[in-house]
Amino acid sequence: MAGNTYGRKFTLTTFGESHGPAIGGVIDGCPPNIQLDFDAIQYELNRRKPGQSAIVTQRKEPDEVQFLSGIFEGKTTGAPIGFIVPNTNQKSDDYSHIKDVYRPSHADYTYDVKYGIRDYRGGGRSSARETISRVVGGAIARQVLPQVTINAFTSSVGDIFIDKPYQDLDFSLIESNAVRCPDAATAAKMEDYIKEIRKQGDTVGGTVTCVIKNVPAGLGEPVFDKLHAELGKAMLSINAVKGFEYGSGFCGAKMKGSEHNDAFNADGSTKTNLSGGIQGGISNGMDIYFRVAFKPVATIMQTQETINNAGEIVEMQGRGRHDPCVVPRAVPIVEAMAALVLADFFLIK
Amino acid sequence: MAGNTYGRKFTLTTFGESHGPAIGGVIDGCPPNIQLDFDAIQYELNRRKPGQSAIVTQRKEPDEVQFLSGIFEGKTTGAPIGFIVPNTNQKSDDYSHIKDVYRPSHADYTYDVKYGIRDYRGGGRSSARETISRVVGGAIARQVLPQVTINAFTSSVGDIFIDKPYQDLDFSLIESNAVRCPDAATAAKMEDYIKEIRKQGDTVGGTVTCVIKNVPAGLGEPVFDKLHAELGKAMLSINAVKGFEYGSGFCGAKMKGSEHNDAFNADGSTKTNLSGGIQGGISNGMDIYFRVAFKPVATIMQTQETINNAGEIVEMQGRGRHDPCVVPRAVPIVEAMAALVLADFFLIK
Amino acid sequence: MAGNTYGRKFTLTTFGESHGPAIGGVIDGCPPNIQLDFDAIQYELNRRKPGQSAIVTQRKEPDEVQFLSGIFEGKTTGAPIGFIVPNTNQKSDDYSHIKDVYRPSHADYTYDVKYGIRDYRGGGRSSARETISRVVGGAIARQVLPQVTINAFTSSVGDIFIDKPYQDLDFSLIESNAVRCPDAATAAKMEDYIKEIRKQGDTVGGTVTCVIKNVPAGLGEPVFDKLHAELGKAMLSINAVKGFEYGSGFCGAKMKGSEHNDAFNADGSTKTNLSGGIQGGISNGMDIYFRVAFKPVATIMQTQETINNAGEIVEMQGRGRHDPCVVPRAVPIVEAMAALVLADFFLIK
Amino acid sequence: MAGNTYGRKFTLTTFGESHGPAIGGVIDGCPPNIQLDFDAIQYELNRRKPGQSAIVTQRKEPDEVQFLSGIFEGKTTGAPIGFIVPNTNQKSDDYSHIKDVYRPSHADYTYDVKYGIRDYRGGGRSSARETISRVVGGAIARQVLPQVTINAFTSSVGDIFIDKPYQDLDFSLIESNAVRCPDAATAAKMEDYIKEIRKQGDTVGGTVTCVIKNVPAGLGEPVFDKLHAELGKAMLSINAVKGFEYGSGFCGAKMKGSEHNDAFNADGSTKTNLSGGIQGGISNGMDIYFRVAFKPVATIMQTQETINNAGEIVEMQGRGRHDPCVVPRAVPIVEAMAALVLADFFLIK
Repeated sequence: MAGNTYGRKFTLTTFGESHGPAIGGVIDGCPPNIQLDFDAIQYELNRRKPGQSAIVTQRKEPDEVQFLSGIFEGKTTGAPIGFIVPNTNQKSDDYSHIKDVYRPSHADYTYDVKYGIRDYRGGGRSSARETISRVVGGAIARQVLPQVTINAFTSSVGDIFIDKPYQDLDFSLIESNAVRCPDAATAAKMEDYIKEIRKQGDTVGGTVTCVIKNVPAGLGEPVFDKLHAELGKAMLSINAVKGFEYGSGFCGAKMKGSEHNDAFNADGSTKTNLSGGIQGGISNGMDIYFRVAFKPVATIMQTQETINNAGEIVEMQGRGRHDPCVVPRAVPIVEAMAALVLADFFLIK
Repeated sequence: MAGNTYGRKFTLTTFGESHGPAIGGVIDGCPPNIQLDFDAIQYELNRRKPGQSAIVTQRKEPDEVQFLSGIFEGKTTGAPIGFIVPNTNQKSDDYSHIKDVYRPSHADYTYDVKYGIRDYRGGGRSSARETISRVVGGAIARQVLPQVTINAFTSSVGDIFIDKPYQDLDFSLIESNAVRCPDAATAAKMEDYIKEIRKQGDTVGGTVTCVIKNVPAGLGEPVFDKLHAELGKAMLSINAVKGFEYGSGFCGAKMKGSEHNDAFNADGSTKTNLSGGIQGGISNGMDIYFRVAFKPVATIMQTQETINNAGEIVEMQGRGRHDPCVVPRAVPIVEAMAALVLADFFLIK
Repeated sequence: MAGNTYGRKFTLTTFGESHGPAIGGVIDGCPPNIQLDFDAIQYELNRRKPGQSAIVTQRKEPDEVQFLSGIFEGKTTGAPIGFIVPNTNQKSDDYSHIKDVYRPSHADYTYDVKYGIRDYRGGGRSSARETISRVVGGAIARQVLPQVTINAFTSSVGDIFIDKPYQDLDFSLIESNAVRCPDAATAAKMEDYIKEIRKQGDTVGGTVTCVIKNVPAGLGEPVFDKLHAELGKAMLSINAVKGFEYGSGFCGAKMKGSEHNDAFNADGSTKTNLSGGIQGGISNGMDIYFRVAFKPVATIMQTQETINNAGEIVEMQGRGRHDPCVVPRAVPIVEAMAALVLADFFLIK
Repeated sequence: MAGNTYGRKFTLTTFGESHGPAIGGVIDGCPPNIQLDFDAIQYELNRRKPGQSAIVTQRKEPDEVQFLSGIFEGKTTGAPIGFIVPNTNQKSDDYSHIKDVYRPSHADYTYDVKYGIRDYRGGGRSSARETISRVVGGAIARQVLPQVTINAFTSSVGDIFIDKPYQDLDFSLIESNAVRCPDAATAAKMEDYIKEIRKQGDTVGGTVTCVIKNVPAGLGEPVFDKLHAELGKAMLSINAVKGFEYGSGFCGAKMKGSEHNDAFNADGSTKTNLSGGIQGGISNGMDIYFRVAFKPVATIMQTQETINNAGEIVEMQGRGRHDPCVVPRAVPIVEAMAALVLADFFLIK
């Protein structure tokens, strides 16, 4: 109930701050006898880690996971899986300038109001480094559901959008560029734009689209724990997310019922899929797809006026090593959260 | 865990189908010694009930709530509050034609796949009548937080939008028209459009915007139970919802950090509020506002091709008494869910 | 979290006070497609109800359950099962004398301290009438696990004990006497003693033993949610319970390992069963048995000195209609809670 | 829900096996701004650790805790507190003889049935080493409630009992002997008896009594989460526990109401305290006291017949380093669990 656990049957509890000794977590409820693919877990961490390309933060961290329990001779035992990822490249000095200062649109102010104490180094608990544990949890969740494929990708950066339906994209190209956009021409524009934004000392937002195939029909627990409601919560719990829509989403709100209804085929599949693979909160076996909006990173390399904890107006300049656009590194996090949601519902069912 | 309870400390458990004896629920965790305003509770039920205007379903139900426990001499006692709302206008015959038929874009098919049995009368558990219990729960939740004001309104129907920021609207006008749109000119257009849609035997989607004022700073439980993540889940759990965005939302994904950051005033308030009153998952004391997308109601009065549970293609015509646009009656439900989320976080804090 | 829900997957939420309109509850997570035996449910309620014999309270209540949801054509649908049992024989006047008075060893004082308000009529929420909802929940839980047999019985009243191991008892005789003791000679002594106690205007405690057969091996969730730990919690949550022991129990604490260890047979069963059917918190397929201690009912028909809510010493005489010994009517409640625990673990597994 | 988390608001999640790299846990929901006393935490670990005296297992482990998160400049921050205790004295070879063998009255068989895989080294997850994490959690929980004092002690070993009420004992003597019995004469007898049992290659059970003073009135959440029900569950979740009683306990079941009722003093305190500080599931401000029964350790140094996982009868001799009586080292574990229960209820209230 204290906010650091996701899930009911397949649960991930995370801990750790940006500048403490380690980030880590505990996965409880993982079924026994799964032969874990450790390379696949590390692969996901590598997709998330800083320093991986020219358009992300240049902070260098190996981000290697150490498992402490719940695994015997390479297989899960049904016992809780504890793990840690050491923090190795902490530069706390980078943050001394914000010790008493509230960065605009960061969590500094609200953490201080709520807790009355704050580990200011690197954002502390509100650091995006916390998502490391989610990626580990998600990588294991995927191994609980090997038949399900989850592909997220960058669908927009600023005003630059992919203007094709996802069915026309080749997901095998997602990792072919630093932006994680499967449309090469759009990816190039996005990459150029992010470099331009970085030069301005600015940041930019974007969206991630996620497509999930081969989900068995029947997942979801109405009326409150509808499958899309949990997907929405999971996505909205990722740092910097401002919106979530699935299937027809906000566009669906403009449509008529006669246009929006998905007609059935005789086998129970549907001719169209504006429902986004979920009806009445329960998966129907069609592709699940949704879109997640990320705001621009709040830390910019420009001078901003702000306040300190004495209520004085002060001037601050962005420092540290930050992403000009969070979206490319958010792609594996979106996938991880989707995997956690699905594994949980699958095991509850 | 079985999906029919919302909340952790202030919990609402709902039960009931459209055509059973009653809809009802249990509120647990309500603080003791609250002098309940029963008229205020019934007022919210009246806002939700069918037959209230020319643009909603003409089904007639008094929807009067009976409290069974947890209240002594008009005050809450801290014991669970059980309540029921009898179903009085059930016309099960209206539904015999769909006994074996899956209505397109309804929950019929997925309920059958998941549960292997289905109360087909009026949609059974997937009926929007279930939201009666949410409205009762929300009306009590509001009385836990009397200083907070929650105003939702219809912000779009089909392509017809209010083209003003919410700050320019007079919320006292929300109830002045059947659409629950505080902008009179837009409301008139929406109402005409809904009547036109009804004549076509069709339905149309729309959006509800909700603005919450006077929320104390400090609500929200990072990292998974962020305030906006729970708001998102709560809204997405309402029938027909396809999307949720708060603050700058999907528009924020197009912006630069230098445009998006909310500069502080000396008192900790902010000059702008693209954050939507929440930073790092915790309320900051500014207005919380969000937008919810509703798809068009799936039941249309036109002939549709569909399948039955033997996998045969059949033709069906919409029957029964349905809303051409769900949004006007969804307004109090959005408010109720917002109240439930806030009361829960307030009591956890 | 607010205390009125038991279970994680098969959950029972209860509401209702002794003197309100009704007692009731919601069962969530019941598997679909169970053809309910309604007579079996009412049978359990009849075992619990007042007025059933000369040695229990003479309050008269039909205690008939009305189901409101979750059942379609006699079968469970997977939707939550709401139910109520109206209170019909309320004599609130019986309680006006305790309006401001704290009865010794009752919950009056602690409810007032905790909630600052109290429905004093009949004990309000702390009334044993609340267990009606448990009996309904348990009677349905038993139908989830039809192969499991649960037999509880009165094993002691005051100093009168059955001096045989449970294996030597014929459980078909439990209902053959008003005390619910399967040993006829001991039952007669107990009944006489209870009548004697009643004449004295006094009450007496006792123990209930419960034996559960045919539990599948593998139920229980170490390390905190061990099967016996949940059984213990469930039993201790029943009014008036002061202790719980399973298998060898407190006697086991006096033994040596060489005496206590249960040697295996080749099929995994054990030659002895001091473990009580549970090892490491997980059922092993052997009989589960445990014993529950009930204190004497606090309401006696003798004059007692006590205090009122102004802190004044006052004299009070017991009034109302109460049980001289709670144990005979507690037997079906112990069985109900055992069934709830087992159904929950069975569905989680 | 998967069994490795205790608590609702102040939660402890544990992980780790006896022979993995480390035991550890996560505490979530700890209030911020508590200046932690790290020596007090290590002191509790030292009370639990092996090798501390001549009557416990001679396994040597430093059992030093490393905190990884949630603490900043010595104070809690409100973020989850992750910690590990490395395993340093693993002798896996000691266990190769039980790889395929089910030790009588151990969890070997049930873990294999439930999970289909088992880390046999040192009992894996069912090892009492898991309680290290509970002791860390409990030591922090105590610092949430500094006014409350929790004293557990060995009240019996085999047939040797302290024959005084706890009020006549001097708790400052608990640590003055290896048995943790505050009555010197009884302690000496217990110690002699344990040494004798060890020589026999046998083990013996015992009981721990726990007395909690200065608990604020009002803790506990009826009807299912009564304070004593949670205390019972917490104690029963400790390895080897077979029974729990509080206040008058099983003796209370033999008493009359006129003897058992606790008369009030004018200030709301009671003249006697057979209720054990809890009425109606809620603390009343009086001392809370309870007794916990521990069975004899199943691992004995004598030859036993048992079966292997092929269902063959085999002979096995106890090996490894085990406790002849678990009770002296269980004392700090009982206190830790009590502290976890109280901190959780205190923060929920």
